[in-house]
Amino acid sequence: MTRFGVLDDSIVELAEAAANEALVDAGAVEQTFDRLVVGSQNPDEFTGFGHLSTLLADRIGLVPAAATRVETGPSSGSSAFEVAFSHIAAGLSNLALVIGVEKMSGIERSTASQILAKMISYENETRYGATPIALAAMVARRYMHDYGLTRDELSLVPVKAHKNGAKNPLAHFQKEITVEKVNRARVMAHPLTLYDSCPTSDGAAALVLASKSIVKDLQVKDRSVRVVGVGHATDYHAVQHRQSLTSMKATAVAAERAYSMAKLNVSDIDVFELHDAFSILEIINMEDIGLAPTGAAMKTILNGETEVDGRMPVNPTGGLKARGHPTGATGVAQIRDAVQQLRGEAPRSIQTDSPQSALTHNIGGFGNNMVVSILVNER
Amino acid sequence: MTRFGVLDDSIVELAEAAANEALVDAGAVEQTFDRLVVGSQNPDEFTGFGHLSTLLADRIGLVPAAATRVETGPSSGSSAFEVAFSHIAAGLSNLALVIGVEKMSGIERSTASQILAKMISYENETRYGATPIALAAMVARRYMHDYGLTRDELSLVPVKAHKNGAKNPLAHFQKEITVEKVNRARVMAHPLTLYDSCPTSDGAAALVLASKSIVKDLQVKDRSVRVVGVGHATDYHAVQHRQSLTSMKATAVAAERAYSMAKLNVSDIDVFELHDAFSILEIINMEDIGLAPTGAAMKTILNGETEVDGRMPVNPTGGLKARGHPTGATGVAQIRDAVQQLRGEAPRSIQTDSPQSALTHNIGGFGNNMVVSILVNER
Repeated sequence: MTRFGVLDDSIVELAEAAANEALVDAGAVEQTFDRLVVGSQNPDEFTGFGHLSTLLADRIGLVPAAATRVETGPSSGSSAFEVAFSHIAAGLSNLALVIGVEKMSGIERSTASQILAKMISYENETRYGATPIALAAMVARRYMHDYGLTRDELSLVPVKAHKNGAKNPLAHFQKEITVEKVNRARVMAHPLTLYDSCPTSDGAAALVLASKSIVKDLQVKDRSVRVVGVGHATDYHAVQHRQSLTSMKATAVAAERAYSMAKLNVSDIDVFELHDAFSILEIINMEDIGLAPTGAAMKTILNGETEVDGRMPVNPTGGLKARGHPTGATGVAQIRDAVQQLRGEAPRSIQTDSPQSALTHNIGGFGNNMVVSILVNER
Repeated sequence: MTRFGVLDDSIVELAEAAANEALVDAGAVEQTFDRLVVGSQNPDEFTGFGHLSTLLADRIGLVPAAATRVETGPSSGSSAFEVAFSHIAAGLSNLALVIGVEKMSGIERSTASQILAKMISYENETRYGATPIALAAMVARRYMHDYGLTRDELSLVPVKAHKNGAKNPLAHFQKEITVEKVNRARVMAHPLTLYDSCPTSDGAAALVLASKSIVKDLQVKDRSVRVVGVGHATDYHAVQHRQSLTSMKATAVAAERAYSMAKLNVSDIDVFELHDAFSILEIINMEDIGLAPTGAAMKTILNGETEVDGRMPVNPTGGLKARGHPTGATGVAQIRDAVQQLRGEAPRSIQTDSPQSALTHNIGGFGNNMVVSILVNER
């Protein structure tokens, strides 16, 4: 994984850097890959580069491997992982490289906002002036009304994210913040301020996926992690068409599918990477994946249970808020960070206590295209 | 499948129309789909619509089905089919809808050309003035030099395409042309004229894919077709880096993978849909998939062997040249047309003689991201 942030590198350079690191880490530099799957939301409009999977297959030296780009909005990285997993499970691949990448900083901020706005409904939202953070603000308001969440409590979510990010050398933001700083920051959409929102970032992450028959030939075999569950679900495109403002049903459906496939319950999972694009989403995500009853997630945060040394660590590497959110890269970075946790190879101060299982949760759009993945230690 | 051509409908309307027809045809309107896979090259830049798979899952009524967009340039449709096939073969899906769609006519022609130019190499081709048809012209020149192909002979390829397209009510072009008309048309890149190139089109096609356990519950079961082979391969991004101008190695690799998976040889296949974006490509594709020895494809065309009533019909529905080429839709349309052939449901005058197996071949970029699929009759 490259560092996430505002970077000088091109989208191709970012993808190459992450890919080469993954190949070296897996001891797979000399192996013949049969697949490349690239997750990227919108390289064409963010960067001008198109035909990205073909271009990268050539640059990284994987020709004649099959190469495919996968797009599901900001969950493109997890969806690429899911496609590569499918190819292997279907017997169409033995060794696949997955790259998640996005380069978002090279264009005007207003242009970037217009590109990102396409992930919400034009007919029902954008044309009435709604933006992703405005929708998040409505969700936060409703959650506060229904469950008594306070502004100070909500601020603890980005405070935890920055606390973890400060110890993650690859995070976009590596400094701690305070509740007061969150509360006093520029209001983006009341009651949300600048610090309730993830940044737009550049970055890439990569994974090597191998079939059981191949993994034993790789140097990485003693550090390998097994994919045991993948769940993917959509919800109605426009928030107003959904059952609830304070729960994202597609997360619950995707998680249920992943748990069912993994034959695991939420209580079996040791560490979580959840899609906290906005602070309120970490709370809602926790409830939708079953970490807390409806309206009760904040209690576990206040109790410190979601801290790195807590009972159920959430986003120990900083989450989207502090690690950053180069959209197509995020899902792959979540899985990469989960793998580091399971291997015990995370930076020491954000390494959780010997986790044996991990769950990642990636949102496409504002709650409408969710992917949940579950990994377990092989050892 | 919608008609292909310059159409008034939006990309969403096109996709919906094809999807609804596929659902009705399969008798699957009341079924619960767990997957939607959309193949589209560049909806964002061609139309302004983004997040297409999520949007379509909602519009078509498939929520909470997982929804994914797949992009490999002009082979996006076949790659979407491959991803859906993988999901089913991996056990992650039982019933999937695949849509291929592109809307290319709504913007300035020069803008469309710039978007399409991203499928070739900027560094090695575009910045020196090369365009896809200029590369095709170099290929044609070299083939003429090496194998004695004449301009009049090459013209027989689009003449056959238009002859078939004239009988296909969904084709973009439905009128016959002559060798003289091809030869005297505007020169696009010498020796190629306007009629050596496929048009840019709008259109959509859709397929219902089901696992064995589900297909027996569908009304379509007696008309179902089995997927027995899928092959996918890349070549170097820039033509100048490849081994040959007159053979596309990725086609040969993809075809070999598909034949191997299907346990079939080219001689076992009864009907072919090949990616004839330029006339010379039909000749080269025939050789690369094994229908003729190197330099000998033209002989089989002159003998009438590739006609609808020939020994090995190629592009009975008009191919990209006459059926049209809405890029992301093409691969799905090829498979839809192959299914019609296998069912004996093609328009009577382009129905080949009781085919039991069919092969489709879809090119992404100028020869660098190929997908070959093989289907057989269940009956």
